Amino acid sequence: MRIIKLGASITASNDKDAAALRARLKESGTLLVNVMSSAGSGKTTLLSRLICDLPDFDIGVMEADIESDVDAKTIEALGATAIQVHTGGMCHMDAGMTTAAFDEMGGTHDLVFLENVGNLICPAEYDTGAGCNLMILSVPEGDDKPLKYPLMFRESDVLVITKTDALDYFDFDMDRCIERARFLNPKIAVFPVSAKTGEGMQPLEAWLREALDKWRN
Amino acid sequence: MRIIKLGASITASNDKDAAALRARLKESGTLLVNVMSSAGSGKTTLLSRLICDLPDFDIGVMEADIESDVDAKTIEALGATAIQVHTGGMCHMDAGMTTAAFDEMGGTHDLVFLENVGNLICPAEYDTGAGCNLMILSVPEGDDKPLKYPLMFRESDVLVITKTDALDYFDFDMDRCIERARFLNPKIAVFPVSAKTGEGMQPLEAWLREALDKWRN
Repeated sequence: MRIIKLGASITASNDKDAAALRARLKESGTLLVNVMSSAGSGKTTLLSRLICDLPDFDIGVMEADIESDVDAKTIEALGATAIQVHTGGMCHMDAGMTTAAFDEMGGTHDLVFLENVGNLICPAEYDTGAGCNLMILSVPEGDDKPLKYPLMFRESDVLVITKTDALDYFDFDMDRCIERARFLNPKIAVFPVSAKTGEGMQPLEAWLREALDKWRN
Repeated sequence: MRIIKLGASITASNDKDAAALRARLKESGTLLVNVMSSAGSGKTTLLSRLICDLPDFDIGVMEADIESDVDAKTIEALGATAIQVHTGGMCHMDAGMTTAAFDEMGGTHDLVFLENVGNLICPAEYDTGAGCNLMILSVPEGDDKPLKYPLMFRESDVLVITKTDALDYFDFDMDRCIERARFLNPKIAVFPVSAKTGEGMQPLEAWLREALDKWRN
């Protein structure tokens, strides 16, 4: 596992950088999934489960954090390629930073997950060059989050609602949450899952397989 | 309840604005508490409990959100003065925005809580002019957060660990979390609480009473 330190990209043309990275990824048949959520919503636990459940895929993970390398160590222990990105205090990844991390990771992969900085706001504002934006909302965070952080829901292709094993414990109305998310983004795919028990993972995994097929065709 | 829309302060001298607001608050004997946490960690639930438990205090709440007014409505229903601040997409409050919100709120209060934007990163970088920084970490977020978001722990006077009623349900080591927080900030006061059941609230409330006394002397 390597650790690289990145600051904000010098270029102002983030969209241009994002398009360039996306073209490279398309060429190589690698689907880059930008995983965004608040801190502590279970990004690493979800990715760990996906790595175990998709052994036929060559998976790479870029872990973006302000500090620490606990998540990259967790991922690496599962046999996937992991690279830790330290963002130098930055609250999000941009396309230039993502490209640098992708270059540093090297190798060829079917799926690369960018575990973005834990933050429900800023990462939604930057196109990283990913082929797919996947956001996570965990049950303990509450079903009102689409009302408060609408941009993240608008920018995401898929919403994974995690920690459903804790549904009995929290006042979380699943239908209301999904309705609020779809009001903002009618096309968003929604998967309620428990990465802990594995419940609900299969439809999400089927969706990812299909997304990779589409990306390659 | 009023809703005001604020963008970033024009002035670059945030520290100067913060000092000016703090001087005004000192003069009027009002303790401004800057409440920071990730999205969904229970800021509004904690404030609701404090309002109910401290009936002898005149309390005002400034709710900062990118969108929606659900939290301000909740607070107002408890009889406290509530003002909703829409930050215009900004992921944090600065001193100029806080001053504008405080002016708009008006009246005289013993305690004013600024419920900052739900974000464990950016709000820690801006002095709002508050007399006290209170951060919340909820049990479902995990005990590793001090490792990943150290600045927030360094900048806070008090750490409230919420949702302790869910401790049996999550893999959260309270001692390890507190040790990690104190490693970053040896002076931080720590209160594990359940705002839902009321457990642990009394010591936090005693601490707030003492903080107000100190602020006024």
